[in-house]
Amino acid sequence: MNKAIPGFTGSPLQRIDHERDNPANIASMRADPAALLLRLDGLDPVAGEEGLNWGSLAEAGEAELALLGLIEGVPRFVALNAHADANARSPALFRMLGDLPSSEAATYAVARSLVDWHARHGHCPRCGKATEPIRAGWARRCAADGSEHFPRTDPVVIMLAEHRGRVLVGRQPRFPPNRYSALAGFVEVGESIEEAVARELFEEAGVRATSVRYIASQPWPFPSSLMIACVAPVESDAITLDTKELEDAMWVGREDVVQALAEAEGARFLAPPAYAIANTLFHRWLAGD
Amino acid sequence: MNKAIPGFTGSPLQRIDHERDNPANIASMRADPAALLLRLDGLDPVAGEEGLNWGSLAEAGEAELALLGLIEGVPRFVALNAHADANARSPALFRMLGDLPSSEAATYAVARSLVDWHARHGHCPRCGKATEPIRAGWARRCAADGSEHFPRTDPVVIMLAEHRGRVLVGRQPRFPPNRYSALAGFVEVGESIEEAVARELFEEAGVRATSVRYIASQPWPFPSSLMIACVAPVESDAITLDTKELEDAMWVGREDVVQALAEAEGARFLAPPAYAIANTLFHRWLAGD
Repeated sequence: MNKAIPGFTGSPLQRIDHERDNPANIASMRADPAALLLRLDGLDPVAGEEGLNWGSLAEAGEAELALLGLIEGVPRFVALNAHADANARSPALFRMLGDLPSSEAATYAVARSLVDWHARHGHCPRCGKATEPIRAGWARRCAADGSEHFPRTDPVVIMLAEHRGRVLVGRQPRFPPNRYSALAGFVEVGESIEEAVARELFEEAGVRATSVRYIASQPWPFPSSLMIACVAPVESDAITLDTKELEDAMWVGREDVVQALAEAEGARFLAPPAYAIANTLFHRWLAGD
Repeated sequence: MNKAIPGFTGSPLQRIDHERDNPANIASMRADPAALLLRLDGLDPVAGEEGLNWGSLAEAGEAELALLGLIEGVPRFVALNAHADANARSPALFRMLGDLPSSEAATYAVARSLVDWHARHGHCPRCGKATEPIRAGWARRCAADGSEHFPRTDPVVIMLAEHRGRVLVGRQPRFPPNRYSALAGFVEVGESIEEAVARELFEEAGVRATSVRYIASQPWPFPSSLMIACVAPVESDAITLDTKELEDAMWVGREDVVQALAEAEGARFLAPPAYAIANTLFHRWLAGD
């Protein structure tokens, strides 16, 4: 994996979203004998040594289909599954993600977020009645009140506070032993990316950002975040930890980060996996971004 | 207004989100005689020459309250309003937004997005039953299935394609006469900011981005977008217009943009208002960002 490219990006998928509202073309694609169905096990990929696994549309049976788009000119679909359980995240899933090329993981991410959204949004948030998929699986419509609803994409800021050549890493109680990562939090309504970065750093670690620079972004399909990675110089290295969010935080230098990324023996901490943008963020920070 | 600072940012509001789960503290704030209620007319601000208008909590009557946060140490609330109509956007509203200082507009944006979200999300998207506000108005909970639901923040990319010192501006049919702006579109599930910029530029104008640089962001409370402004150099200036999205597009040079921002007589186009991040984006592009 190219360490400068965030995980879950680089899918060869052409979304052809202008076709989603064209039922005749969607019907042709569904009737195309070359059309392929992404095989999923619940929400997990069915991946082998050659990456994602595709079958014929017949395998979907009576399930509703969503059009992912085209790859190599071939229509690609995924079956909606109202019983998909987003909370069932197995260690096997994360091992598979570590093995998949970023471009394959990126195609999977689209499918996972979409299927998961449908499974958890079968009713109209306005009136409570059941909704139906429309736009080739890219929205749902309520026949009772006519409202249309679109998949959620939740922006999350993830950032390294920076002070005199060191950056701040923290660990959540749910992390594997010795894993530390960049701090993170959801962008709330009515705030910019820069404001969310400053707010989260102050809330979680008591440090005050003097500026914010954007570094990179990635989709994160658990369930459907948009991760926005930044670096923020801060006024002081005095930390006041929010122990509800983090069980520890520490300042680390360049050599610490180099060793963590290299998974060196005796490294001060264990870095997040390559498909997480925190990993990209460490690489980009070392590169001077 | 400082032209380098995006509209709807710079609110003095401290969100104190760690208090939202502390019912005793929330009750104290509601009982505080100094606590203030943001006066709204439906979803519109009730603004005078001195900016936003605040009253006592008693004015809310039986309405549920959401805690916006603290300003100058004083708790600030807004009343939820299930009948607020997000589609009722009056010309008077946009005149008011043009007159409000950015920091006041930013506080208003938090309230508007929050009240609007509650008004359109009274039911559980999983099971359809009615939900109730929790977390001081920052979430809703379904008593039937126990699920919790959080306000949406929808990321939108807005970008200037750039080619040999010129940038691409387009107009939507709903724009006022001669208004042109940066192209824009929602970030979809499973894509990065950079991928969304490239996709939208290709779909709407047929131009291919060779890279994407992030410039700035702002919240946009109609209803609750996160606008992410970028500049993207493109391979060629040949345009293929998607006439479903845009009625025209054209390449403009530095002097065109200078005159548009100055609202000069004879300017080639009318720029978006100062509170829109497209305006900031033009200023930042002229400044060399």
